Amino acid sequence: MKPEVVAKFQPLFHPKSVAFIGASNKPDKWGSIILANLINGGFNGPIYPVNPGETDIQGLKSYPKIADVPNNPDLAVIVVPPPSVPQVIDECVNKGVRAGVVITAGFAEVGDAGQDLQLEMVNRARAGGMILVGPNCNGIMCPPANLHAAMPPIFPPPGKVAVVAQSGNVATSIARRVMKKGLGISCLVSTGNEADLHCEDFFQYLAEDPETKVILSYIEGFRDGKRFFEITREVTKKKPVIMLKAGSTGAGARAAKSHTAALSGSDSSFDGARRQAGIIRAKNIDDLNNIGLGFIRQPLPRGRQVSIVTAGGGWGVLAADACAEAGLEVLTLPEKTIAELDAFMPAWWSRGNPVDLVAGLRPDHLWKALECVLRCSEIHGVILLGIMAALPLRPLPTSTNPQEIEKAIQEILRGMRDAFQKLLGMAYRYQKPVIVASEFPNTAVDIESQMAGMLGTIGGVCYLRPEDTAMVMASLADYAEYLRFGALEDGADHNPPNKRPKKLSDSKKHI
Amino acid sequence: MKPEVVAKFQPLFHPKSVAFIGASNKPDKWGSIILANLINGGFNGPIYPVNPGETDIQGLKSYPKIADVPNNPDLAVIVVPPPSVPQVIDECVNKGVRAGVVITAGFAEVGDAGQDLQLEMVNRARAGGMILVGPNCNGIMCPPANLHAAMPPIFPPPGKVAVVAQSGNVATSIARRVMKKGLGISCLVSTGNEADLHCEDFFQYLAEDPETKVILSYIEGFRDGKRFFEITREVTKKKPVIMLKAGSTGAGARAAKSHTAALSGSDSSFDGARRQAGIIRAKNIDDLNNIGLGFIRQPLPRGRQVSIVTAGGGWGVLAADACAEAGLEVLTLPEKTIAELDAFMPAWWSRGNPVDLVAGLRPDHLWKALECVLRCSEIHGVILLGIMAALPLRPLPTSTNPQEIEKAIQEILRGMRDAFQKLLGMAYRYQKPVIVASEFPNTAVDIESQMAGMLGTIGGVCYLRPEDTAMVMASLADYAEYLRFGALEDGADHNPPNKRPKKLSDSKKHI
Repeated sequence: MKPEVVAKFQPLFHPKSVAFIGASNKPDKWGSIILANLINGGFNGPIYPVNPGETDIQGLKSYPKIADVPNNPDLAVIVVPPPSVPQVIDECVNKGVRAGVVITAGFAEVGDAGQDLQLEMVNRARAGGMILVGPNCNGIMCPPANLHAAMPPIFPPPGKVAVVAQSGNVATSIARRVMKKGLGISCLVSTGNEADLHCEDFFQYLAEDPETKVILSYIEGFRDGKRFFEITREVTKKKPVIMLKAGSTGAGARAAKSHTAALSGSDSSFDGARRQAGIIRAKNIDDLNNIGLGFIRQPLPRGRQVSIVTAGGGWGVLAADACAEAGLEVLTLPEKTIAELDAFMPAWWSRGNPVDLVAGLRPDHLWKALECVLRCSEIHGVILLGIMAALPLRPLPTSTNPQEIEKAIQEILRGMRDAFQKLLGMAYRYQKPVIVASEFPNTAVDIESQMAGMLGTIGGVCYLRPEDTAMVMASLADYAEYLRFGALEDGADHNPPNKRPKKLSDSKKHI
Repeated sequence: MKPEVVAKFQPLFHPKSVAFIGASNKPDKWGSIILANLINGGFNGPIYPVNPGETDIQGLKSYPKIADVPNNPDLAVIVVPPPSVPQVIDECVNKGVRAGVVITAGFAEVGDAGQDLQLEMVNRARAGGMILVGPNCNGIMCPPANLHAAMPPIFPPPGKVAVVAQSGNVATSIARRVMKKGLGISCLVSTGNEADLHCEDFFQYLAEDPETKVILSYIEGFRDGKRFFEITREVTKKKPVIMLKAGSTGAGARAAKSHTAALSGSDSSFDGARRQAGIIRAKNIDDLNNIGLGFIRQPLPRGRQVSIVTAGGGWGVLAADACAEAGLEVLTLPEKTIAELDAFMPAWWSRGNPVDLVAGLRPDHLWKALECVLRCSEIHGVILLGIMAALPLRPLPTSTNPQEIEKAIQEILRGMRDAFQKLLGMAYRYQKPVIVASEFPNTAVDIESQMAGMLGTIGGVCYLRPEDTAMVMASLADYAEYLRFGALEDGADHNPPNKRPKKLSDSKKHI
């Protein structure tokens, strides 16, 4: 625990009161929308809107200047035009404000004049002992503190996932995916131009934050690459950092430059450095989330040998391919395990891995098969494809009585939760991850979001396609190896830096 | 139009009546579940259950033997134990049945004895002029004929997408994804062991089927690779065939062998052959669907130069990267187009491609920017990221009046449909694809399925992540090039065969 890091970020993420500078009553203005979100998010300290032209904003008393605000707010949200920002920072410093979120765009990302203005702003803040998020960002959220000082009107519940992103809309995309899985957010930061605080500063705080279990990040480029990797390398020893790195192509790098003034750099240099720093790389927003959620409740595997237990042959084949591609071994089952399975499986079962339950509808077979493979000391993790057989009830899809349907759905949802509770118990007992993917063909199409919500209450995650299970299992194995050996191996990693031809130096190795 | 192909498949997909051999009243039996689906699917001809031990099955009069059925059914669904199947085929032939779906497993996939039994079955069917699906499959669906002779209790509406899969559970996964997008199915086949009819036979039929616009397929291996590619090469000249090929690794190939007795073969040989045959390859079930749905309403692009119009910077960067990786050029905008955009865009816009609307909330900017880039003759397709600005209303998420919320949701849904109708009109007018990805941060999380349903009514598709738009656009460009040049180029393709190191021969090219 580093108390100085925690203390530094306290006024930002757990402020006692918030000044909102540039607050507005006009519905389409950022100064109106973000203030509305702050209010609607249920922040439980005072909020002080500041605007020289108003006396009442969205039902709150408004103040002409920061100096007029009754107390010393810890945090200022700043949404005034770019030229006014340095002056506002001075006023904040004089008032004793210790943290600022500068939403305003029009700084380094628009050229040299903006760069100068940005430097001016950050110099004044640093001289006054004030930390800054942004500029050119869309805000921060700290759901455990009911703090929703951000543009998108989404209100994720408190949870174990932290989000640090150099793009407000990608941060939102990540948070929405977490919410769809019924899970919550510990902290979310849209870092913008990172004039003062960089991604790595937030990582450093989150490593100490007791609410955070895993850090998901979206990066376009680094302000100070050396510092980034030095700090992050220490963070990953405490908590997994999963990263989506954009700007890996010329077109993407150009887009990043004009977006947040970020220099993307060479993708292969990045990839080498992030392996040394133990950062797990994801290929897109969905993978980022899916990998991250795998770390919430699952134990880390002691090796890369897996068994797949599947209700359907095709999904088993796809998962086996994905495992092999991710550097996992779909283990040839030992004789002993086959004999144990033989005791109850139908005579025609394939005796292979995947263990195909042969479209079996019997829950006892599913549970027994799972126990068999978990018991096997050579198997380090288990993938389960298809959970329907474990549920207590399969309602007929033909009932037209809404009450009857609702009752059946609730029963299914409870069955789902109980089945996952049991699976998480097995994973804990054997200290082996059990990663599940399933669809729900016997239920209405739109039950899936309710399913996810129900699972979220126990921290359970059900993936929706077979390949995801292999990706998540491999990421858990990668991280476990990193903790043991101090770096992510090249070969062990499941995410190639990109799809372009290998470099000359790589090609030569084959000759 | 090949009338003989259509005539051959008529009794299978458009039967006048169906015999169900092995029908059951026991709820957990396949012979009960599939019959229930056939009944619940609304098949409008007579259904004749056959079971020597029953007189009434699920409310229908049941017959002891096929010979006892009053008419000559076109189609027989067969769910009896393996040893009885050849005898049942004889009885069907004698009764004049012209097509059979053999659900029963326990044939070639379980070894030599099963292989012999399978051969016996198919020889008798062929001698009697009867075509067969399966064995070891989970059925077929032809929603335009209200025919749901399949295991999963899902009932996709009629639509433009055909599904041919060597796995019943993958076929179900594909169909469910189509349904989630509010779209429908023209025909679905779980091909199983393919004792008689192979995938390519179904492709050949679907090429002539007026209901089918695009063919999605899942393949583990080929019974006769030469025949497969010869036939499919002709099919792809008429309709796009998108394929997910499994069994590309050792673990996957072993799993495929025990699943449907399929020999996966060398992945690189497959990849070369499929390029010659114009087959578009997808990497997973989601990509398969997303690519396929792109072909339903969009015109094909005349080249690979694209513009990205985005409401959010991060999504723009991710899409630019994905375009470059997929072999699309994110075009540097011509001066003329920049001047046209300058006329209305805010002064600080980046003047780059992606055209970043700078978090603009103004619908007129979005529509004007789209017209500008579509008008540009050097741009062959447009990617739009973020549709919210085009909607007429952003309801506050804080209303607690259910009626008010419902009214706002309905207004948003109609606005969404109108916006997509307009986008499809623009795509048609300029004959350039307009591919859209968006999230809906200003609305409740669970509105997305309703959105998809509403868009489905006009054949519109909204993707959920930026990378998907690049993949779909590249696939449309690939197919357009195939139609012009007769083969898919290696470099033009966006889906590398797999992630393993390149072959020696490839490496040498770089030296």
